[in-house]
Amino acid sequence: MNDWVIEYTDWDPAKHPLREALCTLGNGYFATRGAMEEKSATGHNYPGTYLACGYNRAVSTVKDRKIENEDLVNWPNWLYLTFRIGASGWFDLDKVEILGHVVRLHLKEGILERNIRFRDRQKRETTLITRRFVSMNDIHLAGIEWTLIPENWEGEVTVRSALNGNVKNQGVRRYRELNSNHLDIIETGKTDKNSIYLICQTKQSKIMMAQAATTKVFHDNHQMRDQRETKTEARSVRQDITIKCTKHRPVRIEKLVSIYTSKDFAISDPYNDAMRKVSLNINFTKALNQHKRIWEQIWSRSKIEIDTDNDELLILRLHIFHLHQTVSHNSIGYDIGVPSRGWHGEAYRGHIFWDELYIFPYINLHMPELARSLLMYRYRRLPRARLMAEESGYKGAMFPWQSGSNGREESQVIHLNPASGRWIPDNTLLQRHINAAIPFNVWQYYQSTKDMEFLAGYGAEIILNTALFWSSIAIYNQERDRYEIRGVVGPDEYHTRYPGSDKPGLNNNAYTNFMAVWVMQCALNLVKIFDKKRIEELAQKVGFTEKDFELWKDLITKMYIPFDDDGIIMQFEGFGELKPLDWGKYHKEHGDVMRLDRILEQENDSPNNYKACKQADVLMLFYLLSSDRLVKIFQQLGYDFEAHNIPKNIKYYREITSHGSTLSQMIFSWIIARSDREGSWSIFKKALMSDFNDVQGGTTPEGIHLGAMAGTVDLIQRCYTGLEIRDDVLFLNPRLPRELNEVNLHIRYRSHWIKLKINHRKLWIEFDRGWAEPVEINIKGHTRRFETDDIAEIDLG
Amino acid sequence: MNDWVIEYTDWDPAKHPLREALCTLGNGYFATRGAMEEKSATGHNYPGTYLACGYNRAVSTVKDRKIENEDLVNWPNWLYLTFRIGASGWFDLDKVEILGHVVRLHLKEGILERNIRFRDRQKRETTLITRRFVSMNDIHLAGIEWTLIPENWEGEVTVRSALNGNVKNQGVRRYRELNSNHLDIIETGKTDKNSIYLICQTKQSKIMMAQAATTKVFHDNHQMRDQRETKTEARSVRQDITIKCTKHRPVRIEKLVSIYTSKDFAISDPYNDAMRKVSLNINFTKALNQHKRIWEQIWSRSKIEIDTDNDELLILRLHIFHLHQTVSHNSIGYDIGVPSRGWHGEAYRGHIFWDELYIFPYINLHMPELARSLLMYRYRRLPRARLMAEESGYKGAMFPWQSGSNGREESQVIHLNPASGRWIPDNTLLQRHINAAIPFNVWQYYQSTKDMEFLAGYGAEIILNTALFWSSIAIYNQERDRYEIRGVVGPDEYHTRYPGSDKPGLNNNAYTNFMAVWVMQCALNLVKIFDKKRIEELAQKVGFTEKDFELWKDLITKMYIPFDDDGIIMQFEGFGELKPLDWGKYHKEHGDVMRLDRILEQENDSPNNYKACKQADVLMLFYLLSSDRLVKIFQQLGYDFEAHNIPKNIKYYREITSHGSTLSQMIFSWIIARSDREGSWSIFKKALMSDFNDVQGGTTPEGIHLGAMAGTVDLIQRCYTGLEIRDDVLFLNPRLPRELNEVNLHIRYRSHWIKLKINHRKLWIEFDRGWAEPVEINIKGHTRRFETDDIAEIDLG
Repeated sequence: MNDWVIEYTDWDPAKHPLREALCTLGNGYFATRGAMEEKSATGHNYPGTYLACGYNRAVSTVKDRKIENEDLVNWPNWLYLTFRIGASGWFDLDKVEILGHVVRLHLKEGILERNIRFRDRQKRETTLITRRFVSMNDIHLAGIEWTLIPENWEGEVTVRSALNGNVKNQGVRRYRELNSNHLDIIETGKTDKNSIYLICQTKQSKIMMAQAATTKVFHDNHQMRDQRETKTEARSVRQDITIKCTKHRPVRIEKLVSIYTSKDFAISDPYNDAMRKVSLNINFTKALNQHKRIWEQIWSRSKIEIDTDNDELLILRLHIFHLHQTVSHNSIGYDIGVPSRGWHGEAYRGHIFWDELYIFPYINLHMPELARSLLMYRYRRLPRARLMAEESGYKGAMFPWQSGSNGREESQVIHLNPASGRWIPDNTLLQRHINAAIPFNVWQYYQSTKDMEFLAGYGAEIILNTALFWSSIAIYNQERDRYEIRGVVGPDEYHTRYPGSDKPGLNNNAYTNFMAVWVMQCALNLVKIFDKKRIEELAQKVGFTEKDFELWKDLITKMYIPFDDDGIIMQFEGFGELKPLDWGKYHKEHGDVMRLDRILEQENDSPNNYKACKQADVLMLFYLLSSDRLVKIFQQLGYDFEAHNIPKNIKYYREITSHGSTLSQMIFSWIIARSDREGSWSIFKKALMSDFNDVQGGTTPEGIHLGAMAGTVDLIQRCYTGLEIRDDVLFLNPRLPRELNEVNLHIRYRSHWIKLKINHRKLWIEFDRGWAEPVEINIKGHTRRFETDDIAEIDLG
Repeated sequence: MNDWVIEYTDWDPAKHPLREALCTLGNGYFATRGAMEEKSATGHNYPGTYLACGYNRAVSTVKDRKIENEDLVNWPNWLYLTFRIGASGWFDLDKVEILGHVVRLHLKEGILERNIRFRDRQKRETTLITRRFVSMNDIHLAGIEWTLIPENWEGEVTVRSALNGNVKNQGVRRYRELNSNHLDIIETGKTDKNSIYLICQTKQSKIMMAQAATTKVFHDNHQMRDQRETKTEARSVRQDITIKCTKHRPVRIEKLVSIYTSKDFAISDPYNDAMRKVSLNINFTKALNQHKRIWEQIWSRSKIEIDTDNDELLILRLHIFHLHQTVSHNSIGYDIGVPSRGWHGEAYRGHIFWDELYIFPYINLHMPELARSLLMYRYRRLPRARLMAEESGYKGAMFPWQSGSNGREESQVIHLNPASGRWIPDNTLLQRHINAAIPFNVWQYYQSTKDMEFLAGYGAEIILNTALFWSSIAIYNQERDRYEIRGVVGPDEYHTRYPGSDKPGLNNNAYTNFMAVWVMQCALNLVKIFDKKRIEELAQKVGFTEKDFELWKDLITKMYIPFDDDGIIMQFEGFGELKPLDWGKYHKEHGDVMRLDRILEQENDSPNNYKACKQADVLMLFYLLSSDRLVKIFQQLGYDFEAHNIPKNIKYYREITSHGSTLSQMIFSWIIARSDREGSWSIFKKALMSDFNDVQGGTTPEGIHLGAMAGTVDLIQRCYTGLEIRDDVLFLNPRLPRELNEVNLHIRYRSHWIKLKINHRKLWIEFDRGWAEPVEINIKGHTRRFETDDIAEIDLG
């Protein structure tokens, strides 16, 4: 492996599902994965290969309520390509002897290469070299190329190229009993000698999609004469192309496919535009070169390079690569959010959670316009969130925990424990803290870009609406002279109710209460920034008055935060009274206890009864906010909390966290870095490898974890560099872990491209030539002004 | 009439089509117009009322080639509402005596009111008061309210409320022989007691649309008990609601309709979202109030007020109103362009022309984000324009003259002369100057906003691609040592070929050649502004090299512009040799000669043979560019052209222009204002009234002329105030015509809201409070810096 190539040479069918997930290709518009070669070998039920388009599909997991709401749909398989020699059967991996096999994901160029050498029962040896790409240059284009080399035989070969609509959503085993067939095939056919098409529509969401494929066969660079037979079936269309092969002479097959949906911009209708594209006689090599050229630009803008002794850089690049598979410059303007598992796995069915909170910091500093577009996805669902608040008796807007296509709540209300086989109630939808994550993201985007038009036009509405929600859900407790938020769930999904209680929800989750204060504070600041006219307009549209300002002012000094006597912030009120868990026992019995919830449920017990956390909850505060800011807000609330309280809080929770979420290690690495760079680095490495090694044992094949992927990149970008943006200043306070020799970054900040190079001794900073306004940067406490073409070298001494 | 209400009290069936066009309602997303009342009276074939959605539909006007390409489709009629008394027939205007009638378009609130009092054959007298709106607050919502007052009778009344899918595109008489039926009705039905729905899909473009309607009947504010019968038919669905009426007691009927298409954002599917909306029990008054509140904000942002002795202000407001019917804040983010006739008329079938050039100046200074969104419509069609250039043998991008849904050329190639009944070849698609208008708009937007992210990310590509096109279409003529552009058509559509020639196109259209220079100059400036990295990326993507820079540099000093010996810019090479037209003869025979082309063609002659222009062509240069800039470019080209040459050029063309385009008077008013404010004002008034009075005799009912509407507003905004933005300075150089006592403007400039008040003596300028960067304003030659909260009063002495 070099730093740019993920390579697999072993042939272990058990590892294929993970490999498929990690080798997914996409362009921020659609994604594709899988490989014909593995199909029979792994027994996986992928109908050949499949393609998921980030628009729609989900089936409610409520067993008895199979409502179809499509948030993620697998589109027809366009990669379908197989062959047979003479009159033998179609190529079948189970019936050949594998002589050699290699899969390479070329991160730099966005190409997946799969080569195989095999011997069939007739002793014929064949080499098959395949390359495929999903174009980053033209969102509607993808291609696959085969080079078939008869090593010791010659004769007639029939290549079958198909568009296969027999595609189901069956990538996640436990969803399979739900309806998995989401496509109506409308039409299949042939348009010219070389081209076939398939038109389909999703059953519920009624999205139409057309694919057109052109397949050509070459000897050297000359198109071969071939005989073709096209066959249309109800749900698929195929061409059988018969050619003559000569020993040792490579035959090259190019299949280029265009894909259009009814949601696309600048189309007449999906079918006509798809047909027109393939009729343009596009050449595989040319299309691939254009694709590679865009990848060059992406990597230049995405640059995060590190110098370490191990493979960390490769994995970081894999993470950046996957981010671009899911959302990229190609997503800008489309009504697309960031799903926590990407578009290429079916887990969570494409729903939009709070994972944006971990993904946006990277996007803000590299593709700010994409961040804006993703925030618009939320803004467009604000009316729905306002409705949800109203229906629940609150003011403002209440965004759902799991957001479906039109912004409805799509959280499951029961879920399956595969360990016990039982369906158990799921109250995780009470995670109202999503309504802090969204305004937080709005503000961070604004700080990175100073995009005032966005803030005034859209962002302010999100912040003010959620502030109103928080002040209406908070209840004044006269006895305490404090405000409380009751009946919610924090980020830690192990705790959703009090022991023995039938009522879901917990009171005064510290993270939720604190972030609610942050949101209301932010709203009050906004009101100072805008002109009077705009405030009046917002007051009318959002529905707030002077009274709400007064309430916010009161709330930001009187919100209740539970503490124990040692200055430990209690995750929620009553957390301290829970039983301690015998961690030793569970580690001994189960080794890994990441899914402690399933283990306890199987024992008819529940994590609700214990001081045991799935992931960072209270500690999220130390991740999101600098200690200055934290201490200031605690003081404003009248709590005695100083910076020196942070380490003991970290210690307290670290000992009782199972890291049942992939996000957890990443957060711990971050917050521990404050005091212990080396300790942080070793956790960072664990977090970094979580998808690559599928540490949760099976969740990665169901979809990569984008929050953890982007979050680990952000650890390099912001944590170890001490990068923070507040009060219109970019702060840099780098302190690299020993193992990290050097970091090179390329970031976009307020319309400047800035190069940063940091090692243990020095920081180099270089501004591009450009015409943006000068900005202020604070390096280790000293603020200076930078503008176009500026260069500086700072001793970190 | 007051300054906010367009009122019609007369009952003249001949005037109804014009009134219907002028009283169109819309919200930038869809438009609706017409009135049940006129249907039978006017004999118009509108099936009740209709609603046009700005997505798609056109049928090529080539008679024999009825290709359907849908750029504008009339959606099912949701306004359908009628009634009958007892067992009489359904209300029919032809069978009652009209006692009173008034139509009022309330511009301030966006409400159309139509009241009628009539006596039927049974001598029953009834008053019917109707109000309707298309919500500016919720793009998916529209409503109609009837108040029915039995004046001298009582008894049973049946109200029929329907969603009618029997809608055709038949608004333009001469298109009627083309296919006019563009809808497949998929399903109709009832969802609850009060609600019906209709789902349809366009035949070619496959856009799905669902409507759901809830109808309720009230006495005072109490919903009445009613009996309902719902009937679904193949293409419509209706409810007959029977109630008891009492003499003098008003019955109020509310019909609220929600509309969703498959192109919409934040939806699950059109049907489910439409149903859900009407199930929310929306109240007409509340929805109307929210709509009115948004109109208040729109007017505050759109403010252009003038003090004159006549109705000019009312008509200006009507123009601003119509702009918002077509494109508004509701259009932002959608893949929508600005059609020259709005979405509410079928003329030009929704195609996008160059009229943006006249419309953007207003949008730039009031809704810059909308301008950006509309420019993105062009950007998304850049790949298609590049393909068009390639297919025509040019480099870069060649945008089509009439742009259809996916950016294809949709210009007609023959058209009908109603005067002669002949179909004649139409070569107007050779108007390559659209490729100057689009980059010009990009640059103007950037100058108004300093939106660097847009310019770098998108705008630059448009400018560079069109610059490449111009340098590849230009041919070097060694004899002259000049570059030439041959075989094109200028803005003046009377001239499309040389007399006696079979070959379409003219050589060296001055406007085209000059603007091509402007585009290449702009491209060269861009290259200086950007950082090296971005230039490299653009070079790769757009495909230009240093060689192209050299060519541009050569071209901007050596482009050929034809002149006569008196320093008159010739419209094209050879224009001076054309015959003079006997204008007196034609004025005497035909009065108005705006459609001189049709008159001459009928006489087997052609305007191609004469020095006779339809509209401003050369003179466009004086409209688009300041005289400083013009003179500078002419000098750079080595032509002896000074500011004093401008008036004689204007005089020359003024005498030979028929004003066959609604744009022409507006341009003349503008350019004459340089030297003759009073003369300008009288032309301004003509331009202002062109739609209101339907001066072309029948074109306004086919769709208002948005270029002229926005252009006349812009005359007040930029021409008389001398407002110009260049080199990062906002110039103001006001000189009002005598009849114009005062102008009040509210403009958005580089994230500031600025109030301007100008009269004959003074200029007041007031900056809002806000946090945008300071800007420079030059007032009558003196530049000063303005920032938040600044106020100034300047003597214009």
